[in-house]
Formats: sequence, C-alpha cells, structure tokens
Amino acid sequence: MQPQFELTGKEQGYWFISHYGRLWLPNGEVPMGLASQFGLTNKKALAIGEWQGQSAWLVCQNMPQNMSSIRTLLSSSDQTLFLLAGRAVQLAEFFSSHKFCGCCGHEMYLSKTEWCCLCSNCQQRYYPQISPSIIVAIRNNDKILLAKHTRHNQDNLFTVLAGFVEVGETIEQAVEREVYEESQLHIKNIRYVTSQPWPFPNSMMLAFMADYDYGEINIDSNELVTADWYHYSQLPKIPEYGTVARRLIEDTIVLCRQYE
Amino acid sequence: MQPQFELTGKEQGYWFISHYGRLWLPNGEVPMGLASQFGLTNKKALAIGEWQGQSAWLVCQNMPQNMSSIRTLLSSSDQTLFLLAGRAVQLAEFFSSHKFCGCCGHEMYLSKTEWCCLCSNCQQRYYPQISPSIIVAIRNNDKILLAKHTRHNQDNLFTVLAGFVEVGETIEQAVEREVYEESQLHIKNIRYVTSQPWPFPNSMMLAFMADYDYGEINIDSNELVTADWYHYSQLPKIPEYGTVARRLIEDTIVLCRQYE
Ligand SMILES: NC(=O)c1ccc[n+]([C@@H]2O[C@H](COP(=O)([O-])OP(=O)(O)OC[C@H]3O[C@@H](n4cnc5c(N)ncnc54)[C@H](O)[C@@H]3O)[C@@H](O)[C@H]2O)c1
Ligand SMILES: NC(=O)c1ccc[n+]([C@@H]2O[C@H](COP(=O)([O-])OP(=O)(O)OC[C@H]3O[C@@H](n4cnc5c(N)ncnc54)[C@H](O)[C@@H]3O)[C@@H](O)[C@H]2O)c1
Repeated sequence: MQPQFELTGKEQGYWFISHYGRLWLPNGEVPMGLASQFGLTNKKALAIGEWQGQSAWLVCQNMPQNMSSIRTLLSSSDQTLFLLAGRAVQLAEFFSSHKFCGCCGHEMYLSKTEWCCLCSNCQQRYYPQISPSIIVAIRNNDKILLAKHTRHNQDNLFTVLAGFVEVGETIEQAVEREVYEESQLHIKNIRYVTSQPWPFPNSMMLAFMADYDYGEINIDSNELVTADWYHYSQLPKIPEYGTVARRLIEDTIVLCRQYE
Repeated sequence: MQPQFELTGKEQGYWFISHYGRLWLPNGEVPMGLASQFGLTNKKALAIGEWQGQSAWLVCQNMPQNMSSIRTLLSSSDQTLFLLAGRAVQLAEFFSSHKFCGCCGHEMYLSKTEWCCLCSNCQQRYYPQISPSIIVAIRNNDKILLAKHTRHNQDNLFTVLAGFVEVGETIEQAVEREVYEESQLHIKNIRYVTSQPWPFPNSMMLAFMADYDYGEINIDSNELVTADWYHYSQLPKIPEYGTVARRLIEDTIVLCRQYE
C-alpha cells in the first residue's frame, strides 16, 4: 500500500471524492483525468485500486455540488466500479470517524503501510469496520417469504429478511436468530450462496437460502410492516437488479418452479 | 437487551469478568454463584446471554490473579461457552476502546437498548467490530497445502492460509487475493464450509475449501516461513481440535482419501 500523499496535480486516473457517505458524481459518473483538472493540486490522496487500467484515487473532501449516493452505481454493468466506490466511501467515513482515539481521546494518525488509524499516545490501532450481516431467502414449497420493512413502507417494496451478526455468534446462528426474531419461523437447510459488500454504511452481506421448517408467521412490528408467503408467479415489487436480495429471490424462484 | 446496571449482590449466574482481552478463570473455569460471593456488589454488569440455564453476566474489570486467555475454553465440549466468553472479552474490549468519540473526541456513553457507544456531542454511533476474515484449505489431488506462519515459527505448527477481508471486496475475492498474496497460487472451486467467531481479538472466520488450479508455490516471506503440499498420511503438526483450521484440514483429508 502507498501512504497518503500530496497531489502535484499531474496524477492521472479516476477520482473518488467522498464526504459524509457521499461521492462526487458529476453527470452521474466517477470523473477521470488529471488531478489539476478538478482543482485537486496540493490535496491529500490515497491510492485505493484500479479501474479500466487507470489508478483509482481517494480524496476525502466535500464538493459544492453533485455529491451523491453511490446506489446509482449499483445498476452499472461493471460490479468493480460499485465495489471501488464502496471502498472510497467507507474509507473516507472511517478516517473521519477515527480522528481521535477511543481509548484515550488523543489525536490519531493514518498508518503509512495499511488502512489503519494509530494512536501515538496509547498505541491503540483501529481498522475500518466491515459489519457482517446476513440475508436469507426462505422457501416453502413453491412459495417464498417476502416482508415489507418499516423503512420501505413508503415505496411498497417487499424483500427477504436481513440483519446484523452479533458479537459471539456464528453466521449460521445469526441466520436462525434473525429469522426467528423477525418472523418467529424456524428454518432448515441453511445454505450459503454468495457475499456482497453493502456500503450503506458498512455491511458485508452474507447471503443464504433456506427452507421453511415449522412455525406460524408472527412479525416483529418494530422491523416489519407485513410478511407473507408469495407464489413465484405473483410477486409484489421486489428489490432492483444488482442487490443480493434480488439475486436470492431469483435463485429461490428457480427452486419454486422445480417444486411443481 | 437489558441496560448496564449496578449489582445488588444477589444476582446469580456465571460471571464473565474481563479486562484487556483476558477473562477471569479461577481453576480454569468461568465462576458461578452470587455476585456478592465474588466481591462484585455495586459493580456495573451487563447481561450477555445464558449458559446451562443460568444468566451470563459481564463485568469489565481486572482481578488480581487468574486473568487468562479464553483459548483454554476452546477445547471444552460445549462450544457455547467459548462463544459466550468471546462475546464477553470482545464487548469489554469494545467498551474500553470506545470511551471517546473518534469524530470529535467527546466522552461517549453506552446505549441502553443495544451494544453500541453513543456520542452526546456529535451523535456518532459505534458498534462492536467483528472483522470478517477468510480461511481456506487448498487441495491438490491427494495433497493439502500447509504453511508455517512467521508467528508460529517457534511451535512448528503448520496450518491453512487465512487473512482479513478488505473494505470493498467480496468474501470470495478475499479468498483468491489472500491465497495469491501469500503463495502466488491460483485456486478454483471455492466452496463455503462454515463460520467461527475468533475473538483474538475480533475476527469472524469464514471458512472455505478450494482446489488448486495453477501456479508454483512462491511464499510471501513476511507472512510465511514455508509452505508445501502434504500427503494426507504424512501431516506435520496441525492446529488443535476446536479451531476451524483443524475442521478444514480434516474435511480436506476426507477428499484426499477419496482421490486415490
Ligand atoms: N444488499 C441487499 O440486498 C440488502 C438487503 C436488505 C438489507 N441489507 C442491509 O443489511 C443490513 C442489516 O439489515 P437490517 O434490516 O437489520 O438493517 P437496519 O438498518 O434496519 O438495522 C437494524 C438495527 O441494527 C442496529 N445496527 C446498526 N448497525 C449495526 C452494527 N454494525 N452492528 C450491530 N447492530 C447494528 C441498529 O440499531 C439498527 O437500527 C443493513 O445494512 C441493510 O442495509 C442489504
Ligand atoms: N480459527 C482459526 O482456526 C484460525 C486460523 C488461522 C488464522 N486465524 C485468524 O485469522 C485472522 C487473519 O489471519 P492472519 O494470519 O492474516 O492474521 P494476522 O494476525 O497475521 O494479521 C495480519 C495483518 O493484518 C492486519 N490487520 C489486523 N487486524 C486487521 C483488521 N481488522 N482488518 C484488516 N487488517 C487487519 C495487521 O497488519 C496484521 O499484522 C487472525 O485473526 C487469525 O487469528 C484463525
């Protein structure tokens, strides 16, 4: 890893300019060109990877306009761009939330060899947080469990169950616990499918499929507005392509079809 | 979740007393009884779960002796105890490393509803860190790749490859990257096996099996002392039972045997 350094203006590449969880996306795109072109000379930058044969640079600052959510990059055909944008936004957020040491309150500095904030007073180290979260699609014969979350009440979106892994439990225990807490259902045949970094703000989605075992749906009304079994041919509005939730729903539908 | 509260002395259960990553283990065990028995009256405690029908309490403080590593609990037949001890040690470590807000340096307080530290000045929230890490056993026909890590040079222990997931990559990308960085090998058929919370200090091990694809072993000498293919009948010293590394090695040996 290269340490953070001051731009001369001649550095070329893609510019990931991030502040408060947002990214500078003029014309909806990550800008490419020379540092000087974008008024970045003398600003501090960090190399965070490559995209399309060009360097990717992170600069942690605000821009007067076009500071956007990176959700718009999710639909891009190239998953790499979404991942890089997520890295940029999460690192910027990490640096700004780790200026002071949580142990002793002293000012911290950025490591020269890794993405890590160090305390010169008490020697504590802080690494960027990646919060393991589970997401699980549950099948019952030819039907899938879909729920409307309280935060999606407006847009009428239905999706599968998800939640954060707690300290001191396995991923598989987290899947069972979250499903039980949110729906009071018991599940079986829990199978890992895939993973997706989800930088809103810093989850790592661990995606599973499972089968209904026993119990009646009884929702936790703090989290969910409603939950029910849906036949694969009659689905409500579901998450967009690019989300791992969509992927799980599509995969489960394939199994529902086979069941008939 | 119950908030942290002051012990009257009459609370009964298992006492997880933790400080600086260690746990109080008189006679090598987690003590059970009344708070008053152990001089804990008026100390602050947090309910962190249950074990054998008893409450499990966390008290964040030092004890004059028997403060031990919880690694000794790994060999216990009951995995639940190791998980609870890991939760205790990690929460204690989290609270002590999040006394001050990383954003503004102000003193923080503990949430009454979840395991979370809050800043009353700038409203920032911090959750306990769980660092996703990958661990992967690689099979080449009837042989398994085992490496001696620089930190295991003394005890002559050989194990599979492992490493931390980075911000902005999928778990599967982390597996490929770590294997390539440490050995320059390319792998295929990457399959998820299981997970294990690994509280040294706060990893979540995501365990995979994979097959050798192509490349010659060329070790990263910062991380590894040596790495080689081992026939399943001639293994060097490997990790103890209870570790997910051991589980992966055992599972791979089964496949090696079938190969003949
Ligand atoms: N990629 C996808 O397809 C997809 C789909 C659904 C959910 N998700 C994500 O999954 C995650 C979990 O889903 P949810 O519905 O439980 O989220 P949520 O945002 O409703 O969070 C629930 C609660 O968990 C607590 N919390 C927040 N951060 C935490 C952390 N790091 N550790 C422990 N607790 C924390 C907070 O009290 C929060 O209110 C969220 O990040 C969400 O965005 C992703
Ligand atoms: N349970 C098991 O069977 C088992 C077996 C092997 C390794 N492990 C664990 O897997 C983890 C990774 O293994 P390793 O050999 O790379 O570990 P390591 O301890 O050698 O760490 C390598 C380097 O990663 C960096 N680092 C530390 N914490 C980080 C974090 N949260 N995020 C990003 N970088 C971080 C540090 O620079 C550290 O020196 C360790 O926690 C290790 O204890 C568990």
